[in-house]
Amino acid sequence: MLHLEFMTDLGARVTVDVESADKLLDVQRHYGRLGWTSGEIPTGGYQFPLDNETDFDWTLIGARRWTNPEGEEMVIHRGHAYRRRELEAVDSRKMKLPAAVKFSRGAKSTDPEHVREKSDGEFEYVTLAIFRGGKRQERYAIPGNRAQGAPQSATRPAPAPRPSPRPAAAQVEEETPF
Amino acid sequence: MLHLEFMTDLGARVTVDVESADKLLDVQRHYGRLGWTSGEIPTGGYQFPLDNETDFDWTLIGARRWTNPEGEEMVIHRGHAYRRRELEAVDSRKMKLPAAVKFSRGAKSTDPEHVREKSDGEFEYVTLAIFRGGKRQERYAIPGNRAQGAPQSATRPAPAPRPSPRPAAAQVEEETPF
Amino acid sequence: MLHLEFMTDLGARVTVDVESADKLLDVQRHYGRLGWTSGEIPTGGYQFPLDNETDFDWTLIGARRWTNPEGEEMVIHRGHAYRRRELEAVDSRKMKLPAAVKFSRGAKSTDPEHVREKSDGEFEYVTLAIFRGGKRQERYAIPGNRAQGAPQSATRPAPAPRPSPRPAAAQVEEETPF
Amino acid sequence: MLHLEFMTDLGARVTVDVESADKLLDVQRHYGRLGWTSGEIPTGGYQFPLDNETDFDWTLIGARRWTNPEGEEMVIHRGHAYRRRELEAVDSRKMKLPAAVKFSRGAKSTDPEHVREKSDGEFEYVTLAIFRGGKRQERYAIPGNRAQGAPQSATRPAPAPRPSPRPAAAQVEEETPF
Amino acid sequence: MLHLEFMTDLGARVTVDVESADKLLDVQRHYGRLGWTSGEIPTGGYQFPLDNETDFDWTLIGARRWTNPEGEEMVIHRGHAYRRRELEAVDSRKMKLPAAVKFSRGAKSTDPEHVREKSDGEFEYVTLAIFRGGKRQERYAIPGNRAQGAPQSATRPAPAPRPSPRPAAAQVEEETPF
Repeated sequence: MLHLEFMTDLGARVTVDVESADKLLDVQRHYGRLGWTSGEIPTGGYQFPLDNETDFDWTLIGARRWTNPEGEEMVIHRGHAYRRRELEAVDSRKMKLPAAVKFSRGAKSTDPEHVREKSDGEFEYVTLAIFRGGKRQERYAIPGNRAQGAPQSATRPAPAPRPSPRPAAAQVEEETPF
Repeated sequence: MLHLEFMTDLGARVTVDVESADKLLDVQRHYGRLGWTSGEIPTGGYQFPLDNETDFDWTLIGARRWTNPEGEEMVIHRGHAYRRRELEAVDSRKMKLPAAVKFSRGAKSTDPEHVREKSDGEFEYVTLAIFRGGKRQERYAIPGNRAQGAPQSATRPAPAPRPSPRPAAAQVEEETPF
Repeated sequence: MLHLEFMTDLGARVTVDVESADKLLDVQRHYGRLGWTSGEIPTGGYQFPLDNETDFDWTLIGARRWTNPEGEEMVIHRGHAYRRRELEAVDSRKMKLPAAVKFSRGAKSTDPEHVREKSDGEFEYVTLAIFRGGKRQERYAIPGNRAQGAPQSATRPAPAPRPSPRPAAAQVEEETPF
Repeated sequence: MLHLEFMTDLGARVTVDVESADKLLDVQRHYGRLGWTSGEIPTGGYQFPLDNETDFDWTLIGARRWTNPEGEEMVIHRGHAYRRRELEAVDSRKMKLPAAVKFSRGAKSTDPEHVREKSDGEFEYVTLAIFRGGKRQERYAIPGNRAQGAPQSATRPAPAPRPSPRPAAAQVEEETPF
Repeated sequence: MLHLEFMTDLGARVTVDVESADKLLDVQRHYGRLGWTSGEIPTGGYQFPLDNETDFDWTLIGARRWTNPEGEEMVIHRGHAYRRRELEAVDSRKMKLPAAVKFSRGAKSTDPEHVREKSDGEFEYVTLAIFRGGKRQERYAIPGNRAQGAPQSATRPAPAPRPSPRPAAAQVEEETPF
């Protein structure tokens, strides 16, 4: 028997019994659909393989995709809207980085210090997840390959030059659909 | 079987067994009536749809409505009194924000840094909950539509201009009924 | 079934099963007598009604009354000695505060920032509990009205002018009986 | 049924079921012998009566006595070596302190702020435990009065003048036997 | 019955029931192979005996060995790559330190203050584990002495002079295989 700790959509602390380890992701999907989360966002954000990005099952971490009124692809997680950004590969003498997709948002005054990442100038942002490198893991995909209205990679805008954390406009952050 | 963690009105840490997930809100209401809370106030405050405000069941988060001697609508949560404020919609070039109702209080010297929000000048405040946008969720309402003496929206004062976090007068914060 | 989390007098983390919610305070009293505590002191201290002060059952929060060699009324909680102080009512244009009884101690170098309260000048103190206003709650009283050697309100010294957090002399803080 | 939370010698979080409250110290001794600890060191260190010092059962807090190559009495707790120091009684107009035995070590760069205590000059130290005043508690003693090779009080060096937290030499702190 | 708390590879909080204390390390190995960890890295890093280094079972702490494209020996733990460094013994008048093997990485902007260790100049690093002194503990070894493709000590590069925390190049930290 396993016991899985959640924070519900209302912020309550709930533990759910799980029969066996192989049922764990199912239970995370089930409650994640309600916006329940388990644990904190790792510092620097969740790390997933790039090849998992197009059909990643966001319910695994209590999040969901959302297209904002301006048509931008975003992800909602615990009431915060994170914007999808494509980062080009970097191959200079100083840095060597494979291409990546990052979901991040501008930092708010109430964000604790350790989740804030510095960008150019004064701007600070918070990363929910980064998809980069690695080997696709089937267990992270939406079961049955049903894309469930998720934006397709075919519709990806041209990648922005790195570093490209454009501040999410205040109105978007605030208009988060509940 | 689920297990719901509470902090009692006396500050003790108690876990309560809950038969099934659909009983969860009932149990939160039951103990919330005693002032028990589960989890912490999310940074920036709880977020609820605006249309849930008039008959929101504050027992869900261990709080209750209170009208102070001056006739102001407030909410008591863990011994702190939060004042109800109406925020007008903003529609400028820089910001676009729908109307909202916010429950907040002036920050105290013992409030940790990450819950303090800056306002005009030196004043800092703490938000319990904000009702804005979204779609009404029936499960957040007082069961049976019994308003239980809660102030009606008809009695709402005229909305204050944004930003309007007037510091809650010291005597009100302190006179919190137990 | 409920589960009550304690920190024992030795600082160990122990959870105790409790049959039903109405047995909760009994169990807190039982282990509180051994100096076990559940949860942390709320920021700003526990808040209780003033009318509960004379026969308050300190075992509910793992504390006990103690009269120091100088005859001063104190309360011992987790190895710290808190001095009893009476605060007069304040009724000025700027502040309106009912009379209160406060149990506080001088801050130590190892006290975390968020429990320290500023006083006049450089002095900082930590509050265990404040009794003010509210309505007496019978369940907080020593069962059977046995005062158990607790100091009577008749012996109260004249209230000190507010704010009156006299620093607890170093020797008293240190001489804490084990 | 009680449930006792430990951090194992490997840093893992483990809860152990305990039949009844009177078995609690036995279980703490059993796992403490393996270096398992429950809870954190209280700020300012554990406080015990002075008369418990000679035969104190360090397994109660997951520690053990150790004599370093230089013949100094120390205590090992979670990989840190704490040096034994005798503090003379102080009886001045400003301070009145009974004699004490303290186990402390020099602070390391990775020690969090709230465990560091200031000494003369720049030196900072961390206290594991202080034995002072109080009344001997039999339950803290090594069962059966077997001293188990612990240094006897007869071999105590002359007490150092107060305050005497000599910085533990770097090599001793580092040479901690595993 | 024991209960072992994990953070899964997805960051979820899960407790696993364990039949008896002697099965504990087996269960840690089993889930550690999936990247699950229990508890936090101790401040200053895990401490193990030097003689355990060559066949240390990294699954015990949810980590695994990895040889990077440049042929360097590293360890992956919760998405971070730690570089293996050999530290020569120091025997000066000021310090006396036995030889050690350390696994550390450069600090990132999101690392909390208390895990950062200062080095020469501005550079800060984070230690996962240090192998030094002590007596080999068989229970920490890979069961059955199967080295499982782990780099052999025969291939060790010449030890670097102390202190030698070379900053892990940005590209290596970032190219962490998932």
